[in-house]
Amino acid sequence: MLDCFFNPRSVALVGASLNPEKLSSIIFQRLKAGFPGRLYPVNPAHAEIGGLKCYSSLPDIGEEVDLAVFALGAAHVPALLREAVGVVSCAVVVSGGFAEAGPGGAALEEELKEIVRSGGPRIIGPNCLGIYDTLSGLDTYFIPPERMERPARGRLSILSQSGSFAVTVMDELAAEEIGVARVVSYGNKADVNECDLLEFLSADEETGAVVMYLESVDEGRRFVDAARRCSSKKPVAALKVGHTEAAATAARSHTGALAGRYEVYRAAFRKAGVMELRGYEDFLVACKVLAGVEPAAGGRVMIITDGGGMGVTIADECVDLGLDVPPLSDETAAELRAVLPPVCSIANPMDLTGSVTDRHFSEALARTLEGDDFDLAIVASLWGPPGLTERLAEMIAAKKGITGKPVIVCTPGGRYTRERAVLFRSRGLPVFFSPGEAARAASLLCGAGTRE
Amino acid sequence: MLDCFFNPRSVALVGASLNPEKLSSIIFQRLKAGFPGRLYPVNPAHAEIGGLKCYSSLPDIGEEVDLAVFALGAAHVPALLREAVGVVSCAVVVSGGFAEAGPGGAALEEELKEIVRSGGPRIIGPNCLGIYDTLSGLDTYFIPPERMERPARGRLSILSQSGSFAVTVMDELAAEEIGVARVVSYGNKADVNECDLLEFLSADEETGAVVMYLESVDEGRRFVDAARRCSSKKPVAALKVGHTEAAATAARSHTGALAGRYEVYRAAFRKAGVMELRGYEDFLVACKVLAGVEPAAGGRVMIITDGGGMGVTIADECVDLGLDVPPLSDETAAELRAVLPPVCSIANPMDLTGSVTDRHFSEALARTLEGDDFDLAIVASLWGPPGLTERLAEMIAAKKGITGKPVIVCTPGGRYTRERAVLFRSRGLPVFFSPGEAARAASLLCGAGTRE
Repeated sequence: MLDCFFNPRSVALVGASLNPEKLSSIIFQRLKAGFPGRLYPVNPAHAEIGGLKCYSSLPDIGEEVDLAVFALGAAHVPALLREAVGVVSCAVVVSGGFAEAGPGGAALEEELKEIVRSGGPRIIGPNCLGIYDTLSGLDTYFIPPERMERPARGRLSILSQSGSFAVTVMDELAAEEIGVARVVSYGNKADVNECDLLEFLSADEETGAVVMYLESVDEGRRFVDAARRCSSKKPVAALKVGHTEAAATAARSHTGALAGRYEVYRAAFRKAGVMELRGYEDFLVACKVLAGVEPAAGGRVMIITDGGGMGVTIADECVDLGLDVPPLSDETAAELRAVLPPVCSIANPMDLTGSVTDRHFSEALARTLEGDDFDLAIVASLWGPPGLTERLAEMIAAKKGITGKPVIVCTPGGRYTRERAVLFRSRGLPVFFSPGEAARAASLLCGAGTRE
Repeated sequence: MLDCFFNPRSVALVGASLNPEKLSSIIFQRLKAGFPGRLYPVNPAHAEIGGLKCYSSLPDIGEEVDLAVFALGAAHVPALLREAVGVVSCAVVVSGGFAEAGPGGAALEEELKEIVRSGGPRIIGPNCLGIYDTLSGLDTYFIPPERMERPARGRLSILSQSGSFAVTVMDELAAEEIGVARVVSYGNKADVNECDLLEFLSADEETGAVVMYLESVDEGRRFVDAARRCSSKKPVAALKVGHTEAAATAARSHTGALAGRYEVYRAAFRKAGVMELRGYEDFLVACKVLAGVEPAAGGRVMIITDGGGMGVTIADECVDLGLDVPPLSDETAAELRAVLPPVCSIANPMDLTGSVTDRHFSEALARTLEGDDFDLAIVASLWGPPGLTERLAEMIAAKKGITGKPVIVCTPGGRYTRERAVLFRSRGLPVFFSPGEAARAASLLCGAGTRE
């Protein structure tokens, strides 16, 4: 049971400090600002921290604590964790200097494992950033908010063996106004591993999709079972890094993990209905689209653009990803010819040309998606044409609402274009800035690689 | 000889207007603001436009004109072009409604060809945006600047059959402060085609690299010859769209071009030393890196990061692209151990961890690049660690300067990170926001696919 990690009523911060040189100072500020439960700073050097009573040790708190966050030198952690047995239910150890740091650190990590085995608290970490949770208000990430924005609440949960990866992704998602439920950086996994976390998220009603960054998986069979159960309820996607030898060696030294052969992972993902992600960009695409957009019923994509070259490029990308870009039926083509100017190329991809207006996009979308010929659409609006206005986004969203099929917006460009993206996002339309990403989003909505 | 297109002393705008509904109004404003030579508006409906005398026809100007821009209905173009024989040396026909618009338009386009054959002016277009040239000051792109920013002067030249593609790329490059020399959208190529343009750019001393978007190539053998000559002097990269059937069909209706089999293009690129680009993102990467960064002497990449997971991901991407990520020599590793904290992972990829400082990055870069073990480096700085400051960019640029080898910056993240990118750019370091793009930039600097 991992509830103590994700729904704690009380949190102790071991190593609490206001010294800005200490990572714990940022954690303290984040907990004080965002965590609604009881907060106990623990540090024998202080009687009070930031207006809160500071305790000399965990037992000194005098009552049970759901979660203790350890943010101090690795050498101190085992002894303090032993004191915590019977006092705290679970612990996030953000401290580095364990198995990833050589034999001395590995010995310390063995001590942690031994404490867990002998009935001590469950542990996430060490060598991790821990938990960012928009439900519980917990934030153990020691990166200052001006350097890493926190995403708002959403239904996406992220598991990441790498802390820096989790941080960077969260920062990007926040900049694109994509919300999250829970983001767990679990590092060396001395105790809690990807299987435990996946089982928790599988049952978690607040989580609508799971995206994972993996360097290694410890319990192969359990992972496949957990992932299969989870993917039967919500989309699950995973990036397994280290598929090349150079990278695998690096992963080993990074979190002390034995990476294993990539083909084994790929087979496991397939068996478990997990979408295989191929890199950082792909990871971001999955985050942006899986939790917020309904899945497509099939892989037949309609592409509508006002820039012919962009339509051709998107069609290439879609077909390369195994999607189908079928031609228009004669009926639909005839209907569209009646309502669109003759300069338009009535086909798939459809080119509305630089003479486009908002209405042309909305007509083209409605009349192609409403029948049974297409499962989803990519609307690639380039903002050059003077006939496009701010109303484009609401008109597209309205037609999308009527057809009930997924619509992905692809809108490459510079500053003007990036500013306009908010018009689409605020109406629930996922926005991508490149043909490759938009096509990939479409393929993920079709369950890329998991339907055979 | 295409000099009249790229170094005109005088320009006439046929169809000149101040009516904001007319595309020619934007062209007029752009020419008036940026073109330093003589400018002649031509429109029988006006005596004066924007303070300039307006002529009723091209012959009415009464002297020879280097370049005429035609921006009016397709049906009017052939007659006006006939009048121009002996008056103008060359013409950019931005008007659409020719071969791409069906049989009637195709007949008009045949008339244009006939005029060229019988000694009329050379033509770029029709159905194009024409020329944006930071050397001559010419800008025939009819997209208002608030919707499409114009890049500053640089050494990159771009050829694009698609106008919207050229516009979007220019807008993105401007937002990332990448300069260009000349950008030509040449559309239906009734006369001037990719071979003519490539021959011009090959000899053009202002052009340091050429990146092309192709839907079709008309003269295969001539293209290979021209491309080979050009690539022997400067990097040449090409994206051939329509490599899938759906996309090829769309390309046909877009610019009336017969696309041809993709494998033929691929073989031609290889033969001509042209780097093959695989999509829009790839096109942008090529634009960002080829004109501004010296080529690498080989494909041995050193990867230095403060986020272990990011290093692993970049290593995967590099190896997938055929680059080599060799281990550190024992000597280099020993040297680095003496100057870096024990928590660092001294390997390739190198993980400087969240304890990183500016100096760690600069030490790691200097000591790995200075010997003969590596040809270039990817520096992947994540801005979370508090020890990184604004000075990082200048320290990296300084070490790069000493070793003389290419250094690519990879800095994924949100708002804070994007703002900091200017620190690197202003010191001549190319910046990418994802591991995939950074690795691809490295592979292009190694002449991806052209060395066999």
